Amino acid sequence: MITVVGSIAFDAIKTPFAEGERVLGGAAVHFALAASFFDRVHVVGRVGNDFTDEELAVLTRRGIDTSGIERVADGETFFWRGEYGFDMATRTTHETRLGVFADFNPTLSEQARQAELLFLANIQPTLQRQVRAQVRSPRFTALDSMNIWIREQRDELLAAIAQVDCLIINDGELRELTGRPSLYSAAQAVFALGPGVVVCKQGEYGAALYTKDGEFFALPAYPLEQVIDPTGAGDTFAGGFIGYLAGHPQRRIDTALLREALACGIAVASFNVEGLGTERLQTLEAGELRQRYEDLARFTSFSPAPLPLREPVPAEG
Amino acid sequence: MITVVGSIAFDAIKTPFAEGERVLGGAAVHFALAASFFDRVHVVGRVGNDFTDEELAVLTRRGIDTSGIERVADGETFFWRGEYGFDMATRTTHETRLGVFADFNPTLSEQARQAELLFLANIQPTLQRQVRAQVRSPRFTALDSMNIWIREQRDELLAAIAQVDCLIINDGELRELTGRPSLYSAAQAVFALGPGVVVCKQGEYGAALYTKDGEFFALPAYPLEQVIDPTGAGDTFAGGFIGYLAGHPQRRIDTALLREALACGIAVASFNVEGLGTERLQTLEAGELRQRYEDLARFTSFSPAPLPLREPVPAEG
Repeated sequence: MITVVGSIAFDAIKTPFAEGERVLGGAAVHFALAASFFDRVHVVGRVGNDFTDEELAVLTRRGIDTSGIERVADGETFFWRGEYGFDMATRTTHETRLGVFADFNPTLSEQARQAELLFLANIQPTLQRQVRAQVRSPRFTALDSMNIWIREQRDELLAAIAQVDCLIINDGELRELTGRPSLYSAAQAVFALGPGVVVCKQGEYGAALYTKDGEFFALPAYPLEQVIDPTGAGDTFAGGFIGYLAGHPQRRIDTALLREALACGIAVASFNVEGLGTERLQTLEAGELRQRYEDLARFTSFSPAPLPLREPVPAEG
Repeated sequence: MITVVGSIAFDAIKTPFAEGERVLGGAAVHFALAASFFDRVHVVGRVGNDFTDEELAVLTRRGIDTSGIERVADGETFFWRGEYGFDMATRTTHETRLGVFADFNPTLSEQARQAELLFLANIQPTLQRQVRAQVRSPRFTALDSMNIWIREQRDELLAAIAQVDCLIINDGELRELTGRPSLYSAAQAVFALGPGVVVCKQGEYGAALYTKDGEFFALPAYPLEQVIDPTGAGDTFAGGFIGYLAGHPQRRIDTALLREALACGIAVASFNVEGLGTERLQTLEAGELRQRYEDLARFTSFSPAPLPLREPVPAEG
């Protein structure tokens, strides 16, 4: 079973190809929908009185355990308003209202504490530590964060990172966290903090995996004719990645498994961006996911024939 | 034999890790050094009276044919001054002096016209067409371009693109050229212009290959602890890519060969960025190149085990 803590939100999204005023979102929601293809997911979070049974049903229909979602009678659900540029690589936040997340104090149920896998989605690092401390003996733990915590709560964030096996983070944030421009070198700096695995999310360029024992693996994103809305792609990726590990309870979490998991994350994330918010994940079928996962292996494999190197014959000038 | 036309330059480069006031560079130089590992390269270009035998020797030492480089007695070699930001992804051009390239009118030698492979490096599209027209029956032709020609000489550029087999271009420029934000979709727009192959250069994220018959292939860049100077990386990549094709004269240029060629381009380019200008390529040895080429196959391969998909059991809310 997987426990995830993170935002549950309403997003107002504007992209060149789609627009929505009150779209179900939040890191924990995107993560849970993706991971639910592989294992039971327990969501820890908070919503306000504006969060209806209809929204809850999006999760429960996928077998997600929502008993850890607290509903605050006089509160408002976390709200984010943002807009994307032409190539979807630039995102402007117009408004963030924390709502019920302003005074969140997560206490996990007995069941949630027994999770084999734990994902601490992007949220205040103190809360991440608080949740981490409550989960007894997870097989694998991962954490995501963002620029605001790197800048404003650096020490708390470093302490939270020290307590997980894996940091899953955007390339720009990995650079900002470590102050190192080379991602390879930045990953080494994270290993010194505690984690043995760094997964670097690179948006439309895919993702890269670095391990403490020197392994490197990278895959491009799935090639798509049109990206509708990238919101939540990173959390969907994390859901596919952690979900895949959860789906293989008997296997050791070694490089081979982590590679397959990364490919799985990329495959699931490719669907997320094809619709507004969680739209596409809600209709995603197993066969479609399987197809893209297998495509990815084809898209990146080549047989290295011997390089046709020649001895240069110095030419006359 | 490979013919390349493009700039031969002195670059004044400033990066966070290196600085040089008069560094040998230019697209044709970077390309030729990389391609020279695989086949004989004939360079078509122009230099001024400031270009010394020492610079020429950098090329001839690698067996590059410099008989197509015209030395203009009263002219100045093309000059570029630029600076890179912290993560090397942003580049600011401070100065460009065309020098002897202002009135370039390339006439190819008989030998140069017989090239099996032709690379039209980034240069005014009229000149690219002029050179293309002189090469009799090449096995494969490729072209690079940049934002200035896309904006200011669009029709000429489209006409030049129509005459090659392959467009090798940066992702941002591929978007600008086609007006399509999705690189996959942008590649389809290029196929409509003529070429059957699009290679999209993605800097530190590697490169992607699209073919008219629907194939896709992508590889990340080689992970490096430190990038010293990215100047010329794209042309070095093109040199490794085209060079690999030239090194396999008996093979059909199909997807398998193009994939290997792309990996080869990425491997060579990874050395280029480890030194200022062409510094590192000048000392590169065959064994080092072979090692990185083989590493790339390892870095991106995974065995897709069956996805551990579960049937969701709808949960109670």
